[in-house]
Amino acid sequence: MTDTLSPAVQICRDLIRCPSVTPAEGGALTTLEKLLADAGFDVSRVMFSDENTPNIENLFATIGSGKPHFVFAGHTDVVPVGDEAAWTHGPFDGTIADGMLHGRGTADMKGGVAAFAAAAIDYVKAHPNGIPGQISFLITGDEEGPAINGTVKLLEWAKEQGHVFDACIVGEPTNPDALGDAIKVGRRGSLTGTVKVNGTQGHVAYQHLADNPVPGMLKLLSTVAEVELDQGNERFQPSNLEITTVDVGNTATNVIPAHVMAKFNIRFNDQWSVSSLSQHIEKLLNDAAPEGLDWSIEFAREATDSFLTHDEALIQTLSNSIKTVTGRTPELSTGGGTSDARFIKNYCAVVEFGLVGQTMHKVDEHVAVADIEQLADIYLRFLQDYFQA
Amino acid sequence: MTDTLSPAVQICRDLIRCPSVTPAEGGALTTLEKLLADAGFDVSRVMFSDENTPNIENLFATIGSGKPHFVFAGHTDVVPVGDEAAWTHGPFDGTIADGMLHGRGTADMKGGVAAFAAAAIDYVKAHPNGIPGQISFLITGDEEGPAINGTVKLLEWAKEQGHVFDACIVGEPTNPDALGDAIKVGRRGSLTGTVKVNGTQGHVAYQHLADNPVPGMLKLLSTVAEVELDQGNERFQPSNLEITTVDVGNTATNVIPAHVMAKFNIRFNDQWSVSSLSQHIEKLLNDAAPEGLDWSIEFAREATDSFLTHDEALIQTLSNSIKTVTGRTPELSTGGGTSDARFIKNYCAVVEFGLVGQTMHKVDEHVAVADIEQLADIYLRFLQDYFQA
Repeated sequence: MTDTLSPAVQICRDLIRCPSVTPAEGGALTTLEKLLADAGFDVSRVMFSDENTPNIENLFATIGSGKPHFVFAGHTDVVPVGDEAAWTHGPFDGTIADGMLHGRGTADMKGGVAAFAAAAIDYVKAHPNGIPGQISFLITGDEEGPAINGTVKLLEWAKEQGHVFDACIVGEPTNPDALGDAIKVGRRGSLTGTVKVNGTQGHVAYQHLADNPVPGMLKLLSTVAEVELDQGNERFQPSNLEITTVDVGNTATNVIPAHVMAKFNIRFNDQWSVSSLSQHIEKLLNDAAPEGLDWSIEFAREATDSFLTHDEALIQTLSNSIKTVTGRTPELSTGGGTSDARFIKNYCAVVEFGLVGQTMHKVDEHVAVADIEQLADIYLRFLQDYFQA
Repeated sequence: MTDTLSPAVQICRDLIRCPSVTPAEGGALTTLEKLLADAGFDVSRVMFSDENTPNIENLFATIGSGKPHFVFAGHTDVVPVGDEAAWTHGPFDGTIADGMLHGRGTADMKGGVAAFAAAAIDYVKAHPNGIPGQISFLITGDEEGPAINGTVKLLEWAKEQGHVFDACIVGEPTNPDALGDAIKVGRRGSLTGTVKVNGTQGHVAYQHLADNPVPGMLKLLSTVAEVELDQGNERFQPSNLEITTVDVGNTATNVIPAHVMAKFNIRFNDQWSVSSLSQHIEKLLNDAAPEGLDWSIEFAREATDSFLTHDEALIQTLSNSIKTVTGRTPELSTGGGTSDARFIKNYCAVVEFGLVGQTMHKVDEHVAVADIEQLADIYLRFLQDYFQA
C-alpha cells in the first residue's frame, strides 16, 4: 500500500524503521541525506565528539542562497522503547492501523522532520529556477541524549561555514490535543541543583558517636519544596521548583548514614535569570541550614535562561498557515519542557511547531496519518508565505 | 611459640584462622566441637534452613546434669573483612604482635568463645567426678547475618531436647575501653519502620500533570526526624529515632518521580513496647500527613521490646568475678546495639560480658592477649561461684 501514502507519511515511516535510539544513527540520517540530496540539497554529515559522551552524527542540508535564510531544526534520535512487549505494534515497524502511524519517534519528532522534508522538497520542485532565498536543515542525533554533540556544535559549525540564519522553526510536538493548538514562542529557563549533606556514619544504637545528615537535609529541602518563586505574568507561567530525587542508598537498618544527596530542577520565567535564581535559592538554603551543618549546593552547568521570540512576522506567518490548514488559531505558549530552541535563540528568531505530543516518550507512541499530511501542508504554506513566493 | 600461649589464646587463634564469614562455617564449629568433645562434652551440630536465607550450621554442647543449668551463648561467624589490603596483619592469620592478637573476630566474638571454652574445660577438669549442675554452649553461625537460622532456632531445638536453662552469659564485647568496664544487663528495644509515599510521575515542565511525592515525604519525616520520645530513666537512655535512608533513585533531572521511600530505626527503652511505640509513630505521621497524601507505613516483623535482667544473683556473681580479676566494678549498662540476648531472655536470665569492643567490625580488629587470658579467668571464677564449688 506504499503507493497510496503521501510523501510525508512515507518519509516518516522510513525514518521510524531506522532504530535510532540515542546515540545510534540507526540509518535515519542516511535516509534523510539520500532524500534531500536527490532533491538538490547540499548535504553535510558532521560527527561531533566530546569527553565522556558518545560520538554523535548530525546532518546539515541547504539549498538556495541569499536572504532570507530559513532553517528547520529537528532530531532523528528517539528515546528508548521501554517495555517492548507492551507495544501493540513493533516500535520500529512503522505500522499504519486505523489511520494512525505507530512507532517510536512518530510524534517526537520523526513526523515533524518528515513533514518538513516533504514540504521543502515540494517547495523546491515548484521553483525549478531556484528558490527566493535559502532553506536549511539542522538535524541532530543527540536531542534526547546529553545534547553535547548535537545542536550546539552544529550551530557553531554552520556559523563557521558562513551560514547566517534569519528564522527557524523547531519541529517538536507542540500541540497538547489537536494539530494547531499551540506554537511555542519561548520557553522557561531551567536550573538544576544538587544539594549534599555530610554527616558521620555510625551504628544506630550509638547515635552519640554518629551524626545523621538526614535531619539537616530535611530542613534544607523543606525550605524549597513548596517555595513560591513568583506569580507568573502574561507571558509566562509561575516559576516552579520540583525536588527530583533524594538518595541515601543505605540498606542497613542499623546504620546511620554518612551522606545524603538531593536534586531539584526549577523551570523559571523571565522574572529570573540563572544567576539571580541561583543566588536566591542558595540564600534560602543558607538561611535554613542549622548551625554547623556540613552542606553544599552545586548548580549544573547546563542551566538556561528563559527566552521569548520577538519576531512577530515569523509568528504571524506560521499562525496564518496553521489557521488556513486546520481552522485553529494557535495559542502562543511558553510552557512545557526545554528543546534545542534554547540554543538556536542565540542565532536567530525561533518558534516551535510540530505534531500532537500526547504519546511522546510513551509505549505505543503514534500520530494520525492525517496530522502528518496536514503538518506538511502547514510547513509548505509557511514557506510560500515566508518567501512571499 | 605456640607452647607459650595460654589455652584461651590458643583456642582464639585457632578460631581466627577459620574464615567463618557469615554464612560460612569456615571450620570454626569443627574446631570447637573437637575441643569440647575431647573434654567430655556431648556435642551436637545442628543445621537450620529457611526460605531465602542460607543454611546455617550451629553447635550445642553440654556436660553434667541437674540444676543449676548454666549456658554460654555466642557465635563463631564474623563480619566481612572489608578492604583486606588495608589490614596490617592478615585478617585470618591470627598474628600476635606487641601483645595483641590480630584478626577478624578477635573481639566479636571468637575471643569470648575461646575464653569461655578454656574456662569451662578447666572447670570440668577440676571436677573429675562430675560438675555440680550442667554447663552448655549455644553457638551459632548466624549472628552477623539475618539471624534467622541461628540462636532463635537453636533455643527452640534445645527446648525440644528437654534443656531448661537457669542463667546465661552472652560473650559479646561489652567493654567500651577496658576489660571490666561494663556488663550489659538489658537492652533497648528496636523498631524499624518503612514509610512510602506515592505520587504520579511526570515531566518537571508539566508539573500540573504530575504529583511529586517528595514534599509530602518531607512533611512526614520532619515530624519524626528529631522527635523527643522520652527523657530516659535510671535504667535506660532516652529512646532515639534515626532516619537511616531516604530513596527515590531518580537519575533524570527532568522527571518528577512517582515514589519515595524512607526507613527509620528506633532504639527504645522500657517506657515503650513495640506496640505502643508503633501506634505513637503512626499517629505522629498521620497527624503530619497533608490531606489526600497517598502514604503508608510498615513496621518490620523483627521488632523487639526492651528487656532488663532481674536476676540479681547472676549479675552480682559476674560483677564480683570481674572485680576480683580486673579490679574494676563494672557499670550495669543497657546501652548499645541488640544481640542474641534478645532471644535468650525469653528462656532464662541473661547478661552479657566479653572483651573490649573498640575494633569490632573494623579493619585491624584486635584484642590484647592479656585480656583474653583475664576473661578466661573471670569466666572460670564465675563458674566456681555460680556453682558454689
